Amino acid sequence: MTDAYASLEASVLANEVSQLQQDYDLVASNKMSLDLSRGKPAADQLDLSNGLEDAIGGNFLSENGTDVRNYGGLRGLPEARALGAEIMGVPADNVMAGGNSSLTLMHFVVTTALQHGLWGDHRAWNRSKVKLLTPVPGYDRHFVLSEALGIEMVNIDITETGPDMDQARALVAADPQIKGIWCVPKYSNPTGCTYSDQVVDEIAQLPDAAAADDFIVLWDNAYAVHDLVFPGDTLASLLDAADRAQTADHMVQFGSTSKITFAGGGIAFIASSERVLNALEEHMSYQMIGPDKVNQLRHARFLKGRVGQQMQNHAQLIRPKFEIVLSILEEELGALDIATWTNPRGGYFISLDLLPGLATQVIDMAKEVGLTLTPAGATFPHGNDPQDRNVRIAPTFATLDELKAAMRILTLCVKLASAKKLAA
Amino acid sequence: MTDAYASLEASVLANEVSQLQQDYDLVASNKMSLDLSRGKPAADQLDLSNGLEDAIGGNFLSENGTDVRNYGGLRGLPEARALGAEIMGVPADNVMAGGNSSLTLMHFVVTTALQHGLWGDHRAWNRSKVKLLTPVPGYDRHFVLSEALGIEMVNIDITETGPDMDQARALVAADPQIKGIWCVPKYSNPTGCTYSDQVVDEIAQLPDAAAADDFIVLWDNAYAVHDLVFPGDTLASLLDAADRAQTADHMVQFGSTSKITFAGGGIAFIASSERVLNALEEHMSYQMIGPDKVNQLRHARFLKGRVGQQMQNHAQLIRPKFEIVLSILEEELGALDIATWTNPRGGYFISLDLLPGLATQVIDMAKEVGLTLTPAGATFPHGNDPQDRNVRIAPTFATLDELKAAMRILTLCVKLASAKKLAA
Repeated sequence: MTDAYASLEASVLANEVSQLQQDYDLVASNKMSLDLSRGKPAADQLDLSNGLEDAIGGNFLSENGTDVRNYGGLRGLPEARALGAEIMGVPADNVMAGGNSSLTLMHFVVTTALQHGLWGDHRAWNRSKVKLLTPVPGYDRHFVLSEALGIEMVNIDITETGPDMDQARALVAADPQIKGIWCVPKYSNPTGCTYSDQVVDEIAQLPDAAAADDFIVLWDNAYAVHDLVFPGDTLASLLDAADRAQTADHMVQFGSTSKITFAGGGIAFIASSERVLNALEEHMSYQMIGPDKVNQLRHARFLKGRVGQQMQNHAQLIRPKFEIVLSILEEELGALDIATWTNPRGGYFISLDLLPGLATQVIDMAKEVGLTLTPAGATFPHGNDPQDRNVRIAPTFATLDELKAAMRILTLCVKLASAKKLAA
Repeated sequence: MTDAYASLEASVLANEVSQLQQDYDLVASNKMSLDLSRGKPAADQLDLSNGLEDAIGGNFLSENGTDVRNYGGLRGLPEARALGAEIMGVPADNVMAGGNSSLTLMHFVVTTALQHGLWGDHRAWNRSKVKLLTPVPGYDRHFVLSEALGIEMVNIDITETGPDMDQARALVAADPQIKGIWCVPKYSNPTGCTYSDQVVDEIAQLPDAAAADDFIVLWDNAYAVHDLVFPGDTLASLLDAADRAQTADHMVQFGSTSKITFAGGGIAFIASSERVLNALEEHMSYQMIGPDKVNQLRHARFLKGRVGQQMQNHAQLIRPKFEIVLSILEEELGALDIATWTNPRGGYFISLDLLPGLATQVIDMAKEVGLTLTPAGATFPHGNDPQDRNVRIAPTFATLDELKAAMRILTLCVKLASAKKLAA
């Protein structure tokens, strides 16, 4: 079919439904086991970092003389902080280097904000009910973390240049219980957009616009260097914008090497002002003696001077996967006017929007024949996609052949569900 | 002097004070820089584990087929759980293997107990004020962690066989706000005692004696295999005792490789019942995608079949340090009846008790001439040693020569302060 489904005569559409149903039944009779749900690197990407294991080479001394094998050093090794600085585009003095999970650092920052505040004064969030702005669709783990801590989420729309800042400003000005905003500013999960310079400026000014005096921008720069094309998108410096707006004490940035080296065995970073880092370090001291500095040294040495090359190597492996997804979407759905999708220049996801009301159904149909997709609604707080239309596609983990098979199944399900809906 | 100070004639004692003051002034004129405050391994101990860096050898697959480089696996690798089981003396099914810090796991368990409870039901601690029993002297970081979370500490005495269980039972029976007890059951920090079989049994029965229905034994088995002599002390199995008492859901054990391999780059463990592990895993899932499984695999392979040998190698390096401390204490103070000290069969500390009221003064005097000791009171909640008499000596990090010099200074300070006190 090469015409928009909505433009078809009823009989032609009925015929299409019938044909698609036959195709679907055929697929169902040869049930596969495919998975596009996981935003994780494939083994060939992980192989790019096997050299980590040789990076120590018997020399366990940091450039500042610290024996990395022993206890201590809450802020992290200087060379690890410098690595974080390079990845996140901030000065090393503003960086704290931690363990293997930026999500753990986010949880730590949010719980510290809730219970103590980030400034060494009285401004703990939990003096009142706490709400956070959540641009949607967004990253499910931000939502689950917030929900687990009893935080209410207030959705705002995400556009091609970042969160809708008119919505954001109006909401934070009106409601002092809104204490912050979650952001994935570059190659946003799942839409792939990168915030424009103007949006970055406006976000840095948000604490001034807010009724709350303890507003925090939670800036999860997870895909800071994760370009698929070169040069990739350029993200303006939040710290520079915050310096201009005099709001640096209200910006907390996160980053990690999780999709640069080993997804589960990397190192993670916080960047903020000295005042905030001091408060965080104090509260961290009750929870640990220090991070794994051996792994920090391993990473600093392995990635020194070659982050850019490493990311080009990743892109070479995963760009063909994104291209297959996009080409099959275009080939199967391009003319039918039943779906739109993103064409990201980096990151880990393609975001597919269906006709309203079809996401759950399509994901269930795919599951029925052996294709696992991210659960419907996962990109919205509480799993509630109000239009039930967003499907997140994670192309990196599957092989090229698996991807092709999976995308044929997914597009078949989209077509069948859409044609049925329009025929009804 | 070879007689007890208290038995001396006033003039003889005055003469002793005068002589000791001269010695002290001489030391003060040659200020040293020595440190016995840190319970951390020396570089030669860390060297015992440099082979960790070769343990992966290009094979990143766990015995269950998991690619350890990727995301996931909150409970840890099977071989890491087996290592934790071996160290802690529990079945591997009861073990969760985590990151580099058991203190982080303790903080996680206590905050989960506070906010959600450990049983998937309504029994969160924070339904009321929360108190924990703290055997004293004890581990400062347990106290600081508790204080940071707003938990009140109720001190009980520690004896040569463990906490005074009559005190413990009476307190927990009378006060439903007492929700648990901190324990370092083997080579206790700082006294070095190992809990007797009877005490272990009685601790396992404590949840039944408690007025609280959500009582938890926090069992920090930090020195489980850290013997100085062989065979070392034998600690009875808490899990077996709890099975007999039907209290296994109220026991949470902690362990780590921190003083087996790299102090800052090891792996840590929780052991508890399946019900508790399930609840912990759920709440952990909001905070991380998984632990660093590469380091878990590294440790499991490196230590497989050689934990005992590794600990003998450690003992060979640090036993002479303990012996120097003990021999200088005996030589300088043995006849004077002004101090008592422990002679531990394992662990990291020697606990020195002075005449009441002298700990702060002696530690300050030592500091004055360049010897840093653990701050007075550190082994008590809020840094408050009610008798101001306990000094914790950490012999492992210093060299033998440093130790000798440090112990001469420390014993000189003890003698001078004691003689002055008795002469006053």
